[in-house]
Amino acid sequence: MLEFLKQRSQKASLPPGSAVYVGKERAHVVEVRILDYDRDTYLDSSELNLDEVKRLHDSSTTTWLNIDGLHEVSVVEDIGKMFGLHPLTIEDIVNATQRPKVDIFDDYVYLVVKMPFYDEEEKTVEMEQVSFVLMEHILITFQEKKGDVFDGVRKRVSTNKGRIRKMGGDYLTYALLDAIIDGYFGVLERVGEYVETLELELVVDPRPATLHKIHELKREMILLRKSVWPLREVVSSLQRDEIPFVTDSVAPFFKDLYDHVIQVLDIVETFRDIVSGMLDIYLSSISNKMNEVMKVLTIFAAIFIPLTLVAGIYGMNFNPEKSPYNMPELNWVYGYPFALGLMVVVAGAMLYYFKKKKWF
Amino acid sequence: MLEFLKQRSQKASLPPGSAVYVGKERAHVVEVRILDYDRDTYLDSSELNLDEVKRLHDSSTTTWLNIDGLHEVSVVEDIGKMFGLHPLTIEDIVNATQRPKVDIFDDYVYLVVKMPFYDEEEKTVEMEQVSFVLMEHILITFQEKKGDVFDGVRKRVSTNKGRIRKMGGDYLTYALLDAIIDGYFGVLERVGEYVETLELELVVDPRPATLHKIHELKREMILLRKSVWPLREVVSSLQRDEIPFVTDSVAPFFKDLYDHVIQVLDIVETFRDIVSGMLDIYLSSISNKMNEVMKVLTIFAAIFIPLTLVAGIYGMNFNPEKSPYNMPELNWVYGYPFALGLMVVVAGAMLYYFKKKKWF
Amino acid sequence: MLEFLKQRSQKASLPPGSAVYVGKERAHVVEVRILDYDRDTYLDSSELNLDEVKRLHDSSTTTWLNIDGLHEVSVVEDIGKMFGLHPLTIEDIVNATQRPKVDIFDDYVYLVVKMPFYDEEEKTVEMEQVSFVLMEHILITFQEKKGDVFDGVRKRVSTNKGRIRKMGGDYLTYALLDAIIDGYFGVLERVGEYVETLELELVVDPRPATLHKIHELKREMILLRKSVWPLREVVSSLQRDEIPFVTDSVAPFFKDLYDHVIQVLDIVETFRDIVSGMLDIYLSSISNKMNEVMKVLTIFAAIFIPLTLVAGIYGMNFNPEKSPYNMPELNWVYGYPFALGLMVVVAGAMLYYFKKKKWF
Amino acid sequence: MLEFLKQRSQKASLPPGSAVYVGKERAHVVEVRILDYDRDTYLDSSELNLDEVKRLHDSSTTTWLNIDGLHEVSVVEDIGKMFGLHPLTIEDIVNATQRPKVDIFDDYVYLVVKMPFYDEEEKTVEMEQVSFVLMEHILITFQEKKGDVFDGVRKRVSTNKGRIRKMGGDYLTYALLDAIIDGYFGVLERVGEYVETLELELVVDPRPATLHKIHELKREMILLRKSVWPLREVVSSLQRDEIPFVTDSVAPFFKDLYDHVIQVLDIVETFRDIVSGMLDIYLSSISNKMNEVMKVLTIFAAIFIPLTLVAGIYGMNFNPEKSPYNMPELNWVYGYPFALGLMVVVAGAMLYYFKKKKWF
Amino acid sequence: MLEFLKQRSQKASLPPGSAVYVGKERAHVVEVRILDYDRDTYLDSSELNLDEVKRLHDSSTTTWLNIDGLHEVSVVEDIGKMFGLHPLTIEDIVNATQRPKVDIFDDYVYLVVKMPFYDEEEKTVEMEQVSFVLMEHILITFQEKKGDVFDGVRKRVSTNKGRIRKMGGDYLTYALLDAIIDGYFGVLERVGEYVETLELELVVDPRPATLHKIHELKREMILLRKSVWPLREVVSSLQRDEIPFVTDSVAPFFKDLYDHVIQVLDIVETFRDIVSGMLDIYLSSISNKMNEVMKVLTIFAAIFIPLTLVAGIYGMNFNPEKSPYNMPELNWVYGYPFALGLMVVVAGAMLYYFKKKKWF
Repeated sequence: MLEFLKQRSQKASLPPGSAVYVGKERAHVVEVRILDYDRDTYLDSSELNLDEVKRLHDSSTTTWLNIDGLHEVSVVEDIGKMFGLHPLTIEDIVNATQRPKVDIFDDYVYLVVKMPFYDEEEKTVEMEQVSFVLMEHILITFQEKKGDVFDGVRKRVSTNKGRIRKMGGDYLTYALLDAIIDGYFGVLERVGEYVETLELELVVDPRPATLHKIHELKREMILLRKSVWPLREVVSSLQRDEIPFVTDSVAPFFKDLYDHVIQVLDIVETFRDIVSGMLDIYLSSISNKMNEVMKVLTIFAAIFIPLTLVAGIYGMNFNPEKSPYNMPELNWVYGYPFALGLMVVVAGAMLYYFKKKKWF
Repeated sequence: MLEFLKQRSQKASLPPGSAVYVGKERAHVVEVRILDYDRDTYLDSSELNLDEVKRLHDSSTTTWLNIDGLHEVSVVEDIGKMFGLHPLTIEDIVNATQRPKVDIFDDYVYLVVKMPFYDEEEKTVEMEQVSFVLMEHILITFQEKKGDVFDGVRKRVSTNKGRIRKMGGDYLTYALLDAIIDGYFGVLERVGEYVETLELELVVDPRPATLHKIHELKREMILLRKSVWPLREVVSSLQRDEIPFVTDSVAPFFKDLYDHVIQVLDIVETFRDIVSGMLDIYLSSISNKMNEVMKVLTIFAAIFIPLTLVAGIYGMNFNPEKSPYNMPELNWVYGYPFALGLMVVVAGAMLYYFKKKKWF
Repeated sequence: MLEFLKQRSQKASLPPGSAVYVGKERAHVVEVRILDYDRDTYLDSSELNLDEVKRLHDSSTTTWLNIDGLHEVSVVEDIGKMFGLHPLTIEDIVNATQRPKVDIFDDYVYLVVKMPFYDEEEKTVEMEQVSFVLMEHILITFQEKKGDVFDGVRKRVSTNKGRIRKMGGDYLTYALLDAIIDGYFGVLERVGEYVETLELELVVDPRPATLHKIHELKREMILLRKSVWPLREVVSSLQRDEIPFVTDSVAPFFKDLYDHVIQVLDIVETFRDIVSGMLDIYLSSISNKMNEVMKVLTIFAAIFIPLTLVAGIYGMNFNPEKSPYNMPELNWVYGYPFALGLMVVVAGAMLYYFKKKKWF
Repeated sequence: MLEFLKQRSQKASLPPGSAVYVGKERAHVVEVRILDYDRDTYLDSSELNLDEVKRLHDSSTTTWLNIDGLHEVSVVEDIGKMFGLHPLTIEDIVNATQRPKVDIFDDYVYLVVKMPFYDEEEKTVEMEQVSFVLMEHILITFQEKKGDVFDGVRKRVSTNKGRIRKMGGDYLTYALLDAIIDGYFGVLERVGEYVETLELELVVDPRPATLHKIHELKREMILLRKSVWPLREVVSSLQRDEIPFVTDSVAPFFKDLYDHVIQVLDIVETFRDIVSGMLDIYLSSISNKMNEVMKVLTIFAAIFIPLTLVAGIYGMNFNPEKSPYNMPELNWVYGYPFALGLMVVVAGAMLYYFKKKKWF
Repeated sequence: MLEFLKQRSQKASLPPGSAVYVGKERAHVVEVRILDYDRDTYLDSSELNLDEVKRLHDSSTTTWLNIDGLHEVSVVEDIGKMFGLHPLTIEDIVNATQRPKVDIFDDYVYLVVKMPFYDEEEKTVEMEQVSFVLMEHILITFQEKKGDVFDGVRKRVSTNKGRIRKMGGDYLTYALLDAIIDGYFGVLERVGEYVETLELELVVDPRPATLHKIHELKREMILLRKSVWPLREVVSSLQRDEIPFVTDSVAPFFKDLYDHVIQVLDIVETFRDIVSGMLDIYLSSISNKMNEVMKVLTIFAAIFIPLTLVAGIYGMNFNPEKSPYNMPELNWVYGYPFALGLMVVVAGAMLYYFKKKKWF
C-alpha cells in the first residue's frame, strides 16, 4: 500500500498527461512481438518495424502487438503516437498503479486490468498491470514484465486450434482476458492451500505469529477484492454490447467471462469470511488456553494449600506438657503417619472434586 | 472450496468452449430417459435413438430428455450438436462448477441451478449441478448423478395428475425447479435439526469442538447462500416474462416459485444470524467458565491462606520463658483447641462472606 | 424456525397448486361471517348460503366474507371455486407459511399478511396468517383462528361510525390492515416492557440465563423484522395506486398506513440495536465480575502471604545459643508482640496500598 | 421508545382519521399567532378571528398562522375544517408520534418534521413535532409547545431584514425549516461536549457507569438518526421542485438546506462511529485493568512464596545432633543473617526479573 | 468535530444568505492574484482593479482570479456582486464548513471541495476549503489561506508547458482539482508511513497509548472518507458532461480525475480495514499478555507450593522419641540432604511438566 503511494507520489507535481513510468519492474529489456493472422495466413515477428505494423494494421487481417516492459516510456509513446492514442491513455499505460477500467475513445477502446501472481515464498499475491488497446483489426497489449500467461493463446493462434483464427481482435481480447482470469483461479487455489495450512496451525499450535499470518491473509483478500471488483465492471461493460469494436458474435463469450469473474469474486468473499472465522477461533483459543492455565493453577493451589495447612498445624509449638489438650497427636505412636494419611485423604478428595468437575 | 478450485484449474489452459468434465461424480453409467406427452399421449423410454428424438422434437407433443451423468462428455456433445447448442453451453453443462444463471440464445434458453443434498454423516450440504435447456416443445435436463428428486414429477406426468399433461415444457421446467426448491426446504430442515442439537451442546457442555462445529455450520450457510442468491435471480427473470418459450399462463407459477426462493433465502439468513448468536454464547460461556475457575481458586486461597497464617504464628519459636509476653498461648491449657477454634471461625467467616457475595 | 420447516416439508412432494393445510391451529370449527352494507343498508349473517353470497356479490353493496379457520380445506376450495380463484391462490390461503405479498390477477387482488400475537407466558411473538381477496364489491378474508382483532372494524360498520359505510371494499381492506398494524404496535409495546425488565436484570444480576433471554429476544426481533419487511412492500404497492379495485380516494389512507408500517420497522430496528447493546453490556459485566474476583484473590494473597512469611521467619530454628546474631528477637521481652505488630503494620500498609489503588 | 409505544397504543382501537392528541405536553394554553405581510404591509396578531383569517387568506399577502399546543384538538379541527384539510392530516397534526414526511394534497402540502431539544440534566435529546401546512398565500404551523425557535424568523419579518418580506410562504417555510435544522446543529454541539466529557472519563476512570453512559449516548444517536433520515427525504423532495406551492426562486434555498441536513447526518454518523470506538476502548481498558491486577498478584506471589520456602526450610526440625549434615546452618554464627540475606537476594532477583519484563 | 460544530453554531441565528466567515484561519492578509492567458498572451497581476478584471472577463482570453483568505467577507462580497453570484454562493464561499458539492446556476457553476494537509506534529489530517466559480472565460478560486498547491499549475501556465494555455477555464479547473487530488495521495502517503510506525509499535510494545493512537487514526480515516466521498460525486458529475462551461474535449480528463478519486477512496477504505485489523491485534495481544502473566504465576505457584509443603512437613513437631514412626527422617544422618533433594526432584518434575506443556 505504502509502496504504491510512494510510487504514485513521484508524479504528483507533473502536468496531467505526462507519460512517466510508475512501477517497480525495470530489470529487463522491452520486448515487442507481433502476431498477424486470419483464417489462412499467420505471421509471428519480434521486430518492431513501424511501417510494417502500419501495413498490417491497414490490412483486414487481425494484428496483435504485444509489448513486454513499460519502463522505456519512449517506446510506448512512439506506438501511441503512431496509432493516435490520447495522451491520457499513454499516461495510464505506463502508470502501473491504475485501477481496472474501460475508456472508450472514438478510434479505440482502452482496457486496463490487473494480473495476479502468487509469490510462493512471501505467501503474498502480487499484481501486474496489463493494458489492452482494441482498434479495428488490431489489438495492442502492454505488460509490465515478460510472462508466460499469454503463451497458451499464442499457441492456439499458431496451431489454429479452436475458433481463434476465424475471429477478430475482440475474440482475441476475450481469449487473453480469459487467460488472465484463469490466472486468478490459479492464485486462489494457492491461497486456498495456504488457508488450509493456516487452519491446521490454528488447531495444532496457535501462536501470535498465527494471528499475524491471518491478518496478512485478510489484507491480501482485501487487496485482491479491490482488484477484482473493478475488473467485474470492465467485463460487465464488455458483455453488455456497449463497447465498440466488439461484435455480437463475441458477446456470449464475454458473458461467460463475466460469470467467471463473479465466481472469482464469490471465492474471494468466501475466503474473507473464512479468514474472519479463523480470527474468532484464534481469539477463543487464547481464552481456552487461559482457562487451562487457570485450571492448573487452581488445582495446584487447591490441593497443596490445605496440605500445607495440615503441616502448619502440626508445626505449632503448643506445649503438650502443660495440658493434655495441647496437641496430643504429637505424642501419639502413629501421629506422623496419621498426619501424612490426612494429607493423602485431603489431596485425594480434591482430585476427586476436580475430576467430577471435568477439569482434567 | 479448495476442491472446487482444484477441479476448476484442471481446465485453466484449455481454449474457451472446450467441453471437459469438471466435477467428482464419475462412478455410474450415463443414463438417458425420454418422456414424451401431451393431454392424451404418453411415452416413456430409456433408449437414446437420435432419429426418434428428432421426430418427437418436431411433433407438437412436449418432450423431456433427461441425462444423468456428465462425465461422458461425448454424449453431451452429441446431444448438443443435434439441438444446435452453442459450444459455451455445452462447456457449461459439463463443467459442474457453474454459478446458477440464465443464458438466452436465439433457439433456446439455458438454465443452470444447484440442487442441495444433506450428507447426514458429515453434517454438510453437498451441491449437485442441474442444467435445463428449454426449446420449443422440448426440455433437456442434465444431472451430475442419478437421483430421485425428479421422480415425483415423472409420476405426475405418467399418472396425469394435476395440470402437467395439459401444459408445455415451460410448466415442466417450473415443476422440476419447484422440486429442486422443495429440496432446499428439506435440506434446511435437516440443518435446523442440527442447529438444535448444537444449541443443546452449547448449553450442556461447550467445548472447542463445539466452536469448530459452529464455524463449519457458518461456512455451510455462507456456501448455501451463495448458491441460493443467484438462483433467486434465475427464478426472478423467469417470473418477469422476459424469457422466451415461457408462456403467460405459467408466469403465476414462476411468481409463486420466486416467493419460495425468497423464503429459502430468509431461512438461510435467519440461520446465519442464529449461528452468529451461538458464537457469542460460546465465547461468553468460556468467560463464565473462567469466572468459575477463578472463584474456586479465590475461595480456596482466601480460606486456607489465613488458616495457614494462624498455624504459622503458633509455630514461631519465641521463648515463653524469657518473657510472659512471648506466646503465652502455648502454655494455656486450651491453647491448641483455641487455635483450632480460631481457624474454624476464620474459615466460617470467609465462607459466609463468599456466600453473601453469591459466589457459590 | 424448525417447526416452520417441518410444516413446510409436509407438502414437499405434492404437485404445485395442491391445497393442503399447512399450519398448527386445528382445534376449533371453521366459522364464516358475512357483512353486507352500503350507506343505508346493513346485514350481518353467520350462515354461508352460497346463492345468497352470490346475490350479495352481484349487488352494488359492499360484501365482506370472513372465514376463521383454514384446516377444513374443502370450505376454502368451495369459496375459491365460486369466486374463480386461481389454484395457486387457494394453495397460498391454506398454506399458513406464506411470506406477506400481493398477487394481482385479472379478477381479483390477493394479499397475504402476518398478524402478530404476544405470548405473555413464553415471552415470544407468535404469527397468524391473514389472507385478503379483494374483488369488485366484495372482500373475502381468511384467518387461521378466530380472534377479536377485526371486531373493532365490525363494530364501526354496524354502528355506522366514521366513513366506513360510505366507502367500498378497498377502504374496508385498509381498515382491516390498519387494525393488524395497530396489533404490531401493541406487540411491540409488550416487547418494550420485556426489554425494560431484561435491562434491569442485566444491571442487578446478570447470569447466563440473562444471556439466553437476550438471544431469544434478538431472534424474535429478526423474525418480526422478516414479517414486517415484506408487509412494507405490500402496503407500498397498495399506496402507489398500482393495484386494481383500489380507488383514488382511498390512496391517502394507504399512504398513512405505509407511514405506520415504516414506524413499526423503525421500532423493530431500534429494538435490535438495543438488544445488541445489551449483549455488549452482558459481556463486559462478565469481565467486570472476573476483575472483582481477581481483586479479592489478589488482596487476600497480597495481605496474608507476607504475614505468613513473617510467621515463617520466626518459626526458623536457628540456634540463639550458638550466636548472638541468631534470631535474638526470640529472646526479647516483647519479641512476640513485636512480631504481631509487624504483621499488623504490613497488613495495614497493604490495605492502604489497595485502597489508594481504588480496588475496594 | 416504550413511552412512545404506550402513547401510540392509546389510539389503537379508534377508527382511522380520528383526531386524538398523542403526546405528553399538556401543561400550557393553546396559543395562536397570526403574521400577515408583504413587501409593504405587516400585521402581527394573537387573536384568532376566523373571518379575519379567511380575509387574510384570500388577500395576496403572505399569512403565517402559528399554533402552539396541540392538546386542544378542537382548535386544530376548527382550523382544519376552515382550510379544508383532509381528516388524515388533522389526525397527523395532533398525533405527535409521526415520522417526518411530506404529504401532497390537491389544495395544500403537509410537512411534518421533528425539532430537537437537548435536556441538559438528563443529557438526552428530546423531540418536538412541528407540522407545516403550505397553501397558496398562507402557511400554517403547529408546534407541541411554545418555544423560541421561530422568534428569529418572526423578528426578521417584523424588521424586514433579508429577503423574507419580498417572498412568499414557500420562502417562509424554508426559513422556519432552516431554523429547525440550525437547532440540530446546536443540539449536536451539546452532544459533542458530552462526548468529550465521556472520553475524558474513559481515560481517567472507566467504570461500569461509564459503559452505561456510552450505551445511552449510542441509543441517542440511533434515535437522532431515525429522525434526521426521513427529514433528509422531506427536504430532498422540496429541493427537487416536485412540490406544489414551492416556486423556482426558492429551490436553491432548499438545495442549500438539503446540504445542511446531509451535514447533520454526517455528524450523527461520525458520533456513532466515535461512540463505537469508545466501547472498544472501554472493553480493552477492563482487560488492561485485569492485567494490572494479575501482575500485582503474580509479583506478590512470586516474591513471597520463595521467601516463605526459605523460612520453611530453616523451620524444619532435622536433628543437627544426629548428623553433621542435618542443617548445620542452624548452628552457624551467622546462620540467621545468612537466611535473611538469602531472602533479600531472592526477592531482589525477582524484582529485577519483573522490572526487566516491564511489569511495573 | 466539536470545533466544527462550535464554528457552525456562530451563525445559527442569522438569516439565510448571510455572508459570515466561518473558519479558523484569520491571521494573514487577503491576497488576490489574477492570471489572464490564451495561446499567445500571458498576464500575471496581484492587484485587484475591478474595471480591469471586468475587461479581462469580457475578452476571449481565459482569466483566473485567485483569492487567498476568506475572513474579509467584504472582498468576497464585492467580487460576488461584480460577477452576479447568488447570495447563497457567497455565503457558502465564506462558510468554510461546507460539504463538497456542485451547484449549477444559470450564469456559473459553483464547486466546493476540501484540500487536505497532514499535520506532521499532531499526526492528524487538516482540511482547507477551496471554492471554484466557473463562468464563461473566467475561473474564480477561493482558498482559506495562502498555500503552494496551485503553484505548479501557475508555473505551467507561465512557462506554457503542456496543453494548459491552449485550453479554457474548464481545463484550468481540471488542472487545479488534479493538484488537489494529488494532495490527497501525498497525505495518504504520510498516513501510510504513520500506519507502519504504529504496526511496529503494536508488535514491539503495545500499550494503552497505542490503542489511543489507533483510535485517533481510525477517526481520521472516517473524517477523510467523509470529505472524499462527496468529492467523488462532484468529480463524477463533472465527468458525465452534465455541467455547463465544461467542453467535450476536457471530459476525458475529468474521467481520468474520477479514476484518481476512486483510487483515493479505495486507499482510505483499505486503511480503515488495516486499522480495524490493528485493533484486533491489540486486543488479542492484551489477552496474550495476560496469558503470559498467568503462566508465570502458575509456574511459580506450582513449583514453590509443593516445596513449601515438604518444608512444612519436616517442620512438624511429632515427637520421635514417643514412637519410631514419628518422623524418623529427622534423625537420619542424611535427613536434611534427603529433604533438599526431594525438593529439587519435585521442582525439576514441575519444570519438566511445564516445559512439555510449552509454557516457556
